[in-house]
Amino acid sequence: MKLYETHRAPNPRRLRIFLAEKSIDLATLETIELDLAAGDNLSDDFRAMNPMGGVPVLELDDGRHLSESMAICRYFEALYPEPALLGRAPEEQAFIDMWNRRMEFHLLLPVAMAFRHLTGHFADREAVFPDYGRDRAVAAGQMFDFLDRHLGEQTYIAGAEYSVADITALVAVDFARVVDLRIGDARPQLAAWHERVLARDSAGA
Amino acid sequence: MKLYETHRAPNPRRLRIFLAEKSIDLATLETIELDLAAGDNLSDDFRAMNPMGGVPVLELDDGRHLSESMAICRYFEALYPEPALLGRAPEEQAFIDMWNRRMEFHLLLPVAMAFRHLTGHFADREAVFPDYGRDRAVAAGQMFDFLDRHLGEQTYIAGAEYSVADITALVAVDFARVVDLRIGDARPQLAAWHERVLARDSAGA
Repeated sequence: MKLYETHRAPNPRRLRIFLAEKSIDLATLETIELDLAAGDNLSDDFRAMNPMGGVPVLELDDGRHLSESMAICRYFEALYPEPALLGRAPEEQAFIDMWNRRMEFHLLLPVAMAFRHLTGHFADREAVFPDYGRDRAVAAGQMFDFLDRHLGEQTYIAGAEYSVADITALVAVDFARVVDLRIGDARPQLAAWHERVLARDSAGA
Repeated sequence: MKLYETHRAPNPRRLRIFLAEKSIDLATLETIELDLAAGDNLSDDFRAMNPMGGVPVLELDDGRHLSESMAICRYFEALYPEPALLGRAPEEQAFIDMWNRRMEFHLLLPVAMAFRHLTGHFADREAVFPDYGRDRAVAAGQMFDFLDRHLGEQTYIAGAEYSVADITALVAVDFARVVDLRIGDARPQLAAWHERVLARDSAGA
């Protein structure tokens, strides 16, 4: 299998951490590093692999291309079930999926929108609305506040065990620095969680 | 189990169609209809069930609350595996998840953003950016164009079989009428697919 990715974007990092938690050595995959700023993901060749233009993209041995980070994570979860990052019993899986989606739609998405609309990083290919970016940065900060309260009640985002929801949240929190949003001193529970997940070997992936 | 939902929003419809495809009679669940415009989902009681404020919310028999439409769908898929709407083998599941996420992030989300920022329907609780709304309506229209080409190559969104990706796409396409975005005559393959999925009993759910 081949993996098209980039070290400079949050979604590929989600997948790299996910694989590291499963002790899947990236060296067993052929990895191709793309330069999104240079538009590598806008070429006809790349669009043929993923018409949506996003990374990562996994090329299967039969030549088909799987995209969407979470779909790729789910595929690796099926191939390598241990350690389970998406839960085991149906209820546990459902609540982890709920928390992961909360982290995607209410944390990673606002951070990504703040990044795009405040920095204009992709202004060569999409319209930029700075007021909307500012609004999304505020929303992301409010989610930091929510998580600070939430993580006073439990060790990890989805409960007592580390899961994919922690990976999504970690990547979002770290990426938020590009728009100057930081945990700071006023969110001690979120800071303690951040130290906890950052201390895992996978965080450096 | 109890289901908190509303007939006037797209996400609860996704779940209702999903349950109808599985022949799960909604009458076997106690359903509670909320009025989002009146702010029923902003109350402390509701926030205790889902701090993110969204519907649907499923109350389990043990009193816990599961939210995020797709997490609820995934839970019902585990309880009632047939007919499979999320795929069977890992690869099939992965590609259906990929297509469903494409429909969520590149179709339903832009439609929802166009709705919020063009109509100001939730202006009592969130900032409104009409220029961003217009941009998102254009993006949703471009996704209609993409799907018209895509559905010239295959019967359903994720391949030869109906799946949850068709449910997400149907709900998004129908909801797009609130911002005057319609399939029209210039997208015959998308129109044919729309007739196909709309003809299923579940579409009326």
